[in-house]
Amino acid sequence: MAAGAPMKGGIGTYSYANNSQRQREEYDSAKNLIKHVLIQNLDVKSLVSSGNAFTIADLGCSIGPNTFLAMENIIDGVGEKYDIQGHNPTNLEFQVFFNDRVANDFNSLFASLPVDKRYYAAGVAGSFWGRLFPDSSICVAYSSFALQWLSKIPKELVDKESPAWNKGKIHYTGRGAKKEVVGAYAAQFEQDMDAFLNARGMEIVRGGMIVILIPGVADGVVAHSSGVALTFLESNLCDMVKESNKCRKSLRKMGVSAC
Amino acid sequence: MAAGAPMKGGIGTYSYANNSQRQREEYDSAKNLIKHVLIQNLDVKSLVSSGNAFTIADLGCSIGPNTFLAMENIIDGVGEKYDIQGHNPTNLEFQVFFNDRVANDFNSLFASLPVDKRYYAAGVAGSFWGRLFPDSSICVAYSSFALQWLSKIPKELVDKESPAWNKGKIHYTGRGAKKEVVGAYAAQFEQDMDAFLNARGMEIVRGGMIVILIPGVADGVVAHSSGVALTFLESNLCDMVKESNKCRKSLRKMGVSAC
Repeated sequence: MAAGAPMKGGIGTYSYANNSQRQREEYDSAKNLIKHVLIQNLDVKSLVSSGNAFTIADLGCSIGPNTFLAMENIIDGVGEKYDIQGHNPTNLEFQVFFNDRVANDFNSLFASLPVDKRYYAAGVAGSFWGRLFPDSSICVAYSSFALQWLSKIPKELVDKESPAWNKGKIHYTGRGAKKEVVGAYAAQFEQDMDAFLNARGMEIVRGGMIVILIPGVADGVVAHSSGVALTFLESNLCDMVKESNKCRKSLRKMGVSAC
Repeated sequence: MAAGAPMKGGIGTYSYANNSQRQREEYDSAKNLIKHVLIQNLDVKSLVSSGNAFTIADLGCSIGPNTFLAMENIIDGVGEKYDIQGHNPTNLEFQVFFNDRVANDFNSLFASLPVDKRYYAAGVAGSFWGRLFPDSSICVAYSSFALQWLSKIPKELVDKESPAWNKGKIHYTGRGAKKEVVGAYAAQFEQDMDAFLNARGMEIVRGGMIVILIPGVADGVVAHSSGVALTFLESNLCDMVKESNKCRKSLRKMGVSAC
């Protein structure tokens, strides 16, 4: 997908907080699976030996409420695993780091933290394509519906001279896309994931885990809902660009410099 | 002093960021002293044994830029102490937790973090009169010009039947204040400091430190600058209350319910 900007902040009609029902549904369907993989894979013995609080990072958290539900689920899963392995989870302290880009609305996030939360909360502003935490300081790194947003638009997609020129489009829908376009997106994704995993590799403690939810479609599928939504958005953006160009032309005719 | 609210956010004319020169000057005069006490008192041997990043918390940080200068100074002091004790400080990782109340403008704080900062940054929203961090997770807790703001106004100060009634004033300036008023403020401060130190006692690691900068005046001093400023503010607030009361009275005469 195209390079992403932070979601709309606040709690208004068009805010992410009030328009993230789909992400919530996708998360709900994966909730039990997440708990299951935590119980199956966490290495409690190694984690207990550090003696520190259990730290969780949500990378690309936006402003809630989905992130709060996800953190509660992880805490439940961790508690169950500790219990299974004979470690009393009631004395376990949790610290959650909510991460998103600097322009994310952390003020709204902090203001909507659940009153009965079972963790110490902190916000971390910055790109998850780079380092965010000290070495070996995170027990579970979690990222949901965030890693599909690339760090940047591959430059060849906007270069008319390049065989990967994407003709002003903001994404590709699979079937019918030039292989050079697909290749440019894929190469950027590979580069981004490499940076992401390298950073997390340094930050996650021995015995910890990384949990990633990321939307995907099978090769050749065109009419998936994200693709349709992006095509619709693309069409609106193209109309806006055309209108703006018309306006500039009229202004130039009137002798006014285009802004 | 009276119970405090977060400082004005943003970077506008009246923002804390552009109106904290006095706090900056007070900090400048204490800067070397802070470094000195860190070098004198930090127990590097205990801290090194934990093997974790060096964590610093600024409690009541507001939105900068003073907090950033203070953190840099602490990092310098810690580095010097590690060096003195034969531990290479170049590999030491720092993590700074910027804390203030939930209504603090963390968005502005994150947007103005220095590009060349030598630490991983996190924001923590909440009252420092209670717990903010897991057990034994902070190496240096720092608080500058924040602890003089009480957690709440002692109720007897606003109770006309109480001998400690403060006659609608928002503070006391020392000489001339009733001993009951002084006593009520002192009791609240004692209660707040007790809560503050209890919380920090749980959060600071063995070998760590707490550094507090707090304004104070000698007994009987009236014309200190904070007192003069608060008396001026008090006078303005009283005028505003009188105007508002006049307005309500006029509205009532006109048959309009006062809001």
